[in-house]
Amino acid sequence: MADGTIYVINPNSNADVTNEIDSALSPLRHARGPRISCITLAEGPAGIETQRDADGVIGPLLRRAASLESDAAAFVVACFSDPGIHALREQSARPVFGIAECGVLTAMALGRRVGIIAILPASVARHHRYFTSLGLTTRIAGELPVGLRVGELADEQCAIARMVDVGRTLRDGHGADVLVLGCAGMARYRSALEKSLAVPVVDPTHATVAIALGRLASIGDG
Amino acid sequence: MADGTIYVINPNSNADVTNEIDSALSPLRHARGPRISCITLAEGPAGIETQRDADGVIGPLLRRAASLESDAAAFVVACFSDPGIHALREQSARPVFGIAECGVLTAMALGRRVGIIAILPASVARHHRYFTSLGLTTRIAGELPVGLRVGELADEQCAIARMVDVGRTLRDGHGADVLVLGCAGMARYRSALEKSLAVPVVDPTHATVAIALGRLASIGDG
Amino acid sequence: MADGTIYVINPNSNADVTNEIDSALSPLRHARGPRISCITLAEGPAGIETQRDADGVIGPLLRRAASLESDAAAFVVACFSDPGIHALREQSARPVFGIAECGVLTAMALGRRVGIIAILPASVARHHRYFTSLGLTTRIAGELPVGLRVGELADEQCAIARMVDVGRTLRDGHGADVLVLGCAGMARYRSALEKSLAVPVVDPTHATVAIALGRLASIGDG
Amino acid sequence: MADGTIYVINPNSNADVTNEIDSALSPLRHARGPRISCITLAEGPAGIETQRDADGVIGPLLRRAASLESDAAAFVVACFSDPGIHALREQSARPVFGIAECGVLTAMALGRRVGIIAILPASVARHHRYFTSLGLTTRIAGELPVGLRVGELADEQCAIARMVDVGRTLRDGHGADVLVLGCAGMARYRSALEKSLAVPVVDPTHATVAIALGRLASIGDG
Amino acid sequence: MADGTIYVINPNSNADVTNEIDSALSPLRHARGPRISCITLAEGPAGIETQRDADGVIGPLLRRAASLESDAAAFVVACFSDPGIHALREQSARPVFGIAECGVLTAMALGRRVGIIAILPASVARHHRYFTSLGLTTRIAGELPVGLRVGELADEQCAIARMVDVGRTLRDGHGADVLVLGCAGMARYRSALEKSLAVPVVDPTHATVAIALGRLASIGDG
Amino acid sequence: MADGTIYVINPNSNADVTNEIDSALSPLRHARGPRISCITLAEGPAGIETQRDADGVIGPLLRRAASLESDAAAFVVACFSDPGIHALREQSARPVFGIAECGVLTAMALGRRVGIIAILPASVARHHRYFTSLGLTTRIAGELPVGLRVGELADEQCAIARMVDVGRTLRDGHGADVLVLGCAGMARYRSALEKSLAVPVVDPTHATVAIALGRLASIGDG
Repeated sequence: MADGTIYVINPNSNADVTNEIDSALSPLRHARGPRISCITLAEGPAGIETQRDADGVIGPLLRRAASLESDAAAFVVACFSDPGIHALREQSARPVFGIAECGVLTAMALGRRVGIIAILPASVARHHRYFTSLGLTTRIAGELPVGLRVGELADEQCAIARMVDVGRTLRDGHGADVLVLGCAGMARYRSALEKSLAVPVVDPTHATVAIALGRLASIGDG
Repeated sequence: MADGTIYVINPNSNADVTNEIDSALSPLRHARGPRISCITLAEGPAGIETQRDADGVIGPLLRRAASLESDAAAFVVACFSDPGIHALREQSARPVFGIAECGVLTAMALGRRVGIIAILPASVARHHRYFTSLGLTTRIAGELPVGLRVGELADEQCAIARMVDVGRTLRDGHGADVLVLGCAGMARYRSALEKSLAVPVVDPTHATVAIALGRLASIGDG
Repeated sequence: MADGTIYVINPNSNADVTNEIDSALSPLRHARGPRISCITLAEGPAGIETQRDADGVIGPLLRRAASLESDAAAFVVACFSDPGIHALREQSARPVFGIAECGVLTAMALGRRVGIIAILPASVARHHRYFTSLGLTTRIAGELPVGLRVGELADEQCAIARMVDVGRTLRDGHGADVLVLGCAGMARYRSALEKSLAVPVVDPTHATVAIALGRLASIGDG
Repeated sequence: MADGTIYVINPNSNADVTNEIDSALSPLRHARGPRISCITLAEGPAGIETQRDADGVIGPLLRRAASLESDAAAFVVACFSDPGIHALREQSARPVFGIAECGVLTAMALGRRVGIIAILPASVARHHRYFTSLGLTTRIAGELPVGLRVGELADEQCAIARMVDVGRTLRDGHGADVLVLGCAGMARYRSALEKSLAVPVVDPTHATVAIALGRLASIGDG
Repeated sequence: MADGTIYVINPNSNADVTNEIDSALSPLRHARGPRISCITLAEGPAGIETQRDADGVIGPLLRRAASLESDAAAFVVACFSDPGIHALREQSARPVFGIAECGVLTAMALGRRVGIIAILPASVARHHRYFTSLGLTTRIAGELPVGLRVGELADEQCAIARMVDVGRTLRDGHGADVLVLGCAGMARYRSALEKSLAVPVVDPTHATVAIALGRLASIGDG
Repeated sequence: MADGTIYVINPNSNADVTNEIDSALSPLRHARGPRISCITLAEGPAGIETQRDADGVIGPLLRRAASLESDAAAFVVACFSDPGIHALREQSARPVFGIAECGVLTAMALGRRVGIIAILPASVARHHRYFTSLGLTTRIAGELPVGLRVGELADEQCAIARMVDVGRTLRDGHGADVLVLGCAGMARYRSALEKSLAVPVVDPTHATVAIALGRLASIGDG
């Protein structure tokens, strides 16, 4: 196994989200594996909800990653808009993964038509541009927002109710047979949603770290 | 972590290939994780080299998987034509992964344009139909054969020379910035090829088991 | 005209379906033309309704076709999942046609947006993968199931009512201007459906044999 | 079988081309079938070689077809640019077929990647716009011109040499596994070309009449 | 700035439509710029409402354009079916623009998903074939007809009510964030529609002349 | 005509490039039209050559645009990576145009297959992701770099020689029938390149301002 740490950078400044990500990644940690360290980007906004938010975190993200480079085995950008991953790939000698890209790719291994649960209506258009740039739209059944801001996801009763509702519409109305959580801050609801809707539900940060672990194990083998 | 075993079924009857797969998966095994068991399908041909070969293993594969179902956490079909994965998904209550699908999806997380190294010319057309059915062709830079049969891959000097040659053509002539090994029996050459060509090289069985581990860790968390 | 027989192989074991196909092909038989012989695959299931069914008939189909090769002018696989046509193309020196492929191609000559009437929900997903692999999805308006198993198609009153219903939804709700019967066992309803809905309706076996006749006449001319 | 005549209208004024078409259709004529009558459009140019030529024949074509309507079972427009087929579909109550559309669709039943042999460079761009409008481009390997005008196709030695040359380039350089003759006036060379290149070669007029016969036989059955 | 006149040819014979176009272009006229002259094609039908209408105007359009060639800086074909633009490009040494093509391209600079307001249901299918040939369909949210013939567009109260209705459906039901008027005769309603629906509305003739002016200014600079 | 100024913001800090843009826009200025003001972004890098460069200018660009908002009629971002246009559309009530998007859309009105002349190899991949996100790739024949940095474009002899060379390859090798200059700093070479290669060449900033002028004239009319 390659040395070093997988740095999972939450580019918003909400430490609760970082903690949630950290918990969700626990089952992926084991003795022989690399350290998995989750980091909050202090310069980020409370949540990445606009294109401006996404573009604005790139500078601080690159600086933070540069400071971690020597110790890093890989970087994961833990925001479903994958801000800065191309610039980070230019800058870093380590593998760089975005959770939107890896989340949807993993879902494509679990089902044929992918439904995405977004936070806000504005996220949907931004994500659609991105998935179009990745050439993945023929496999996306639809994306719908729950209408909650990142901070509001912490209200569990409200959040899960809306997520189930939106997930059911994606499954029954759009033909999705697998769902992806369209925000790193939704990780805690993955399991409940999956039980409720009886289709696989992908937490994108978790899925991304699994791919990163595979890549590092592979390199380590060489 | 979910109980049970990940069964990696090599649908050809070549035990050397199964052993090679088994070695390549070692870095993914760890104490807390599920068992990963590699199995040779005795009824399979020496190598899956034609559509007839691919179609012909489905029956025995389904029977073998049925006998393993109670103990299985997941199934991986370790042939780059993904024979029988849809029928196995109908039959099994476990997640079923194909190495062609997961290998290419993983490559898409590591580069923009995927090059595939096949064994024989006939494989290329068969794979092309499959990747078209998956809606992935816009990300595939090309697929080229080394012109060796499955059994001939064991001749290391010859095999690596041809793989480097074909990989270089895919990289320089077709613009591939990531490569996938288009046969489970090529696993031993992954690392050398990656060093030679300076682009990420994906062993599809390894990549698939990494995704399966992620999925099982995720379920186990629920 | 080329010598030999066009073998139309019904890969399910339901002789009623074979008889129905045989009747539907009568108008295509004429003195100078090749014999058209419809055959039931005794080893097939009562109906091909799952991926397992489709995969499972390939072996027996190849063996049966091999026994007919010397006398064959062409082969038509008369199941709307086109099971085994690629393996049969490898095996046979004769032209091999699948009714799903030829049925949809013919419909594309008669209208712009093709609607497909399937038997069961599970058929729709299987066909969708197949038409995606053929690169034809941009011309498919939709596919909907009547919810009847192959054997149940013989109940004329029930079958035609459901087919009209589903056909109308495809025409009015999905914008289909031509329909294809998504099962060889629906042939008897073609004409009634066409009269009812006032759009062309294609029986795929009939359309396929017409293309095969054209091809053989062409070869015979050479 | 439906009554009436299949009118195959050659929209250029070159009666030699009409005669050639007529000969090529002989194997499709039989006692029980409909008459197949080939007609020269006197008002057409010597060959349809430009967009202006193609657009210019539509008016006379519509008038001629109107005069044949009462007796017609179907219309075939025998020019590889399919001039006027949409206007003729508006005007006529009979099925209307274009040879470019039906020629390529038939080729798609015989191979995976279609190569087209055009007469002139300007034809290629015109055809490309058309096949794009039909959503068929993903199956077209390429189209190349022989550089001969319609009238020059009658020089057999020169024509066949160039067609073999262009066909070989399409097969070996572009990966075509089936070829279509991109001009009605090439029909006489179909068989020789097929023998020379060992891939199926489709004469589009012949293929179109075969589909038309199938459709009429189907209607006649109702 | 290049010398000469931009000839905007209305290929229907309805002078009211030509006058409407002429008014809509006023803001694009200025002292240094080229003359912009709007012309009625006397031989055209009252409105271009069928494929036959569209095909039928090409001959007269080419003749009229030929008579204007010496003085022309550019040609704009002011009918949303872009009749004859390819033949005119063959004939003329000047830039030739079609309002359907330029109208939709301009809309794509103003929004992500383009809605088109057509006159009649038959227009929608004709336009769809055309936009498919241009490779633009992934950006088109939908096209819906107001159900009015060209002549009926002059009834302002009725026309604007239906256009607002159809535009709202395109915006709210199909997700269009920019609209294009699908007929040159709708120009007078552009501004009211834009105010009503709060999304940009493109008059295609106006947008086309703006692109033509840019092209001529660019050439003039050389 | 709408009041206010069209602000053309050059997001690099190279005033020579801004001056070049300014000159190229002269033919678009006239008495009745809006002011067109070209601005250098002092905080920008000497040239935008990497993803990091492109992402890095978004913050300063948004701040500068905010300070110009009250007086602005429209914004044009004059860098061929269209940095920040989505964030600027969120921020501003004015129309926002990117020169890459508008340059390619304009080229699509002038030819069928668009060739793009880039500065550096890294630009090609970045642009490709962007044009894929816009759904425009089916119309792009290719993009090739001249291998010069933004600052090196000022060396006229070298620059024009390389641009002619690359443009010829795009025209003859990739089938491009229209070219776009893939950098705002290439404007001065447009005319010479067009004369040399005999296909239309689009300066994207010029083309964008022409579309912006059309849009403003249209709004001003309401």
